[in-house]
Amino acid sequence: PISQDIDHILETQSALSVDLGGTNLRVAIVCMKGNILKKYTETNPNTFEERMFLIIKMCKDAMRDAVGLNCRILGVGVSTGGRVNPQEGVVLHSTNLIQEWSSVDLRTPISDALGLSVWVDNDGNCAALAERKFGHGRRVENFVTIITGTGIGGGIIHQNELIHGSTFCAAELGHIKVSLEGPECSCGSHGCIEAYASGLALQREAKRLHDEDLLKAEGMDIKLSEPITAAHLVSAARMGNPKAEAVLCKASTALGVGIVNILHIVNPSLVILSGVLASYYKEPVQHVISEKALISSQSIKVVTTDLDEPALLGAASMVLDYATRRTY
Amino acid sequence: PISQDIDHILETQSALSVDLGGTNLRVAIVCMKGNILKKYTETNPNTFEERMFLIIKMCKDAMRDAVGLNCRILGVGVSTGGRVNPQEGVVLHSTNLIQEWSSVDLRTPISDALGLSVWVDNDGNCAALAERKFGHGRRVENFVTIITGTGIGGGIIHQNELIHGSTFCAAELGHIKVSLEGPECSCGSHGCIEAYASGLALQREAKRLHDEDLLKAEGMDIKLSEPITAAHLVSAARMGNPKAEAVLCKASTALGVGIVNILHIVNPSLVILSGVLASYYKEPVQHVISEKALISSQSIKVVTTDLDEPALLGAASMVLDYATRRTY
Ligand SMILES: [Ca+2]
Ligand SMILES: [Ca+2]
Ligand SMILES: [Zn+2]
Ligand SMILES: [Zn+2]
Repeated sequence: PISQDIDHILETQSALSVDLGGTNLRVAIVCMKGNILKKYTETNPNTFEERMFLIIKMCKDAMRDAVGLNCRILGVGVSTGGRVNPQEGVVLHSTNLIQEWSSVDLRTPISDALGLSVWVDNDGNCAALAERKFGHGRRVENFVTIITGTGIGGGIIHQNELIHGSTFCAAELGHIKVSLEGPECSCGSHGCIEAYASGLALQREAKRLHDEDLLKAEGMDIKLSEPITAAHLVSAARMGNPKAEAVLCKASTALGVGIVNILHIVNPSLVILSGVLASYYKEPVQHVISEKALISSQSIKVVTTDLDEPALLGAASMVLDYATRRTY
Repeated sequence: PISQDIDHILETQSALSVDLGGTNLRVAIVCMKGNILKKYTETNPNTFEERMFLIIKMCKDAMRDAVGLNCRILGVGVSTGGRVNPQEGVVLHSTNLIQEWSSVDLRTPISDALGLSVWVDNDGNCAALAERKFGHGRRVENFVTIITGTGIGGGIIHQNELIHGSTFCAAELGHIKVSLEGPECSCGSHGCIEAYASGLALQREAKRLHDEDLLKAEGMDIKLSEPITAAHLVSAARMGNPKAEAVLCKASTALGVGIVNILHIVNPSLVILSGVLASYYKEPVQHVISEKALISSQSIKVVTTDLDEPALLGAASMVLDYATRRTY
């Protein structure tokens, strides 16, 4: 309906976002307002070569579609699991959730293949950037975001900027330890909040209860073929299964104590929870803070995100903030 | 030997330092090079009025002596236990180690009485400032200092500046929790590293063993009248007492895990230990880091301070850095 000339003037300034997770590889076209105009999802390949090939192929497809959507692509933002050197666009190291993914330069090959500038940071930091630009973190000087999904990640904004640390290992919030022993974690150590409160940890406990025939609750029906997940544990607890309740209570306490440690170290004014378990954990985390934090840090607010895709939006924000900056 | 005229030209630019601890109230004259030219020690009074009176009296005495020492006093820096708003020079809240010490404006009465500018921060933050100006923290962008004395405190330098947090409750490092239960802490909560690894915590365990007649080791002689302290525990462990060894091992593990949490949250490049137990804890803390920290944060260095008086020197540094700044 609008003429081609006006289309050109009304071109939408946009970013390509790439999100590399343990299961999926996703690409999106994200506009300046934070809307996802188009999204592409594939299974994340197990080898380095296939993964790099697929990233570039999906980005090229998206760039083609962007023309039809009248989007100008300003650059590529990549969110990935693992530790990242964002200055060099390199994945330093990742846990075994993503294989063959250590000492990987992402910037050079993607930039060479697409002719676009490339920014890279880890998924937790990207989630924090998304909150800063589009979410509850707008105009908040010091906040923390914690993603409780398959694993646990997060990012810390201090004086409006991410804390990356001296070896880009800051905000590894899943590996805050709340026990001198405790369950084994994906990092090889013990007692990390990820090993108590992540989706994988809850699934492990659900399976354990199920194997002992203790997961059932009155009115709950688990089919033989059904894979057991964290959701079963939450259902069982809601229906009054005391074993399931005890597991979730311990998980919530561990997450809450981990967050109290964050409060006593960087003292943010806001904690934003995201990921599938966020709404479940919000209330118990607030309770643990009121019970265990120092009086001076109890004024903290805990909220759940209102963003659908923190990692994709945060990856886009690296492009959008840089490409539209006012100073050089 | 030098004439009065040259004395005047060679006046030493100095600060008055005040250190308010659980036991003592100390004042010092500190010169630009970080030398303590004179030091005054009294017992810290139990009431607010007596304490304020004594602070001002000791400062006035020091100012009188400063004339004879040919020192120009540029201002007063105060280090105190508790949480401090350094912008306003107010003690917000303190644990019961210092009584009647909440919502106390230190800047106004001291400044009015002495006619000098006054800076205030808590003892942990002052120790970090001392390391930045005079100690191992010089030219280190990101480091943490941890004081293991009667209690446990500390300060965090991020990009060359202290992290104070949104309610001045950052770097409350003694109250990092490493257990979901654990021993009771001075803050009223449980499982804090202070409750495992501080001088008071070790003294508590030493007394417990002594009461059960388990503190002795071959060749160790404890007099009836002698008060039992952390030092007895360390001696007993060194002489092979397995109960004492177990207590110290747990204390070291708790402190080490607490430090691992700091690494995973702010990822400094250096940890500086100070306080009476620093040299004891250095080696076990390094061991815990190598066992339990993420690979990416294992390059951290752990050292013990070479400063005799971190709190006094840090309090002085607030005065000396500000009074000799180049920009206004
Ligand atoms: Ca992170
Ligand atoms: Ca502190
Ligand atoms: Zn871990
Ligand atoms: Zn405590």
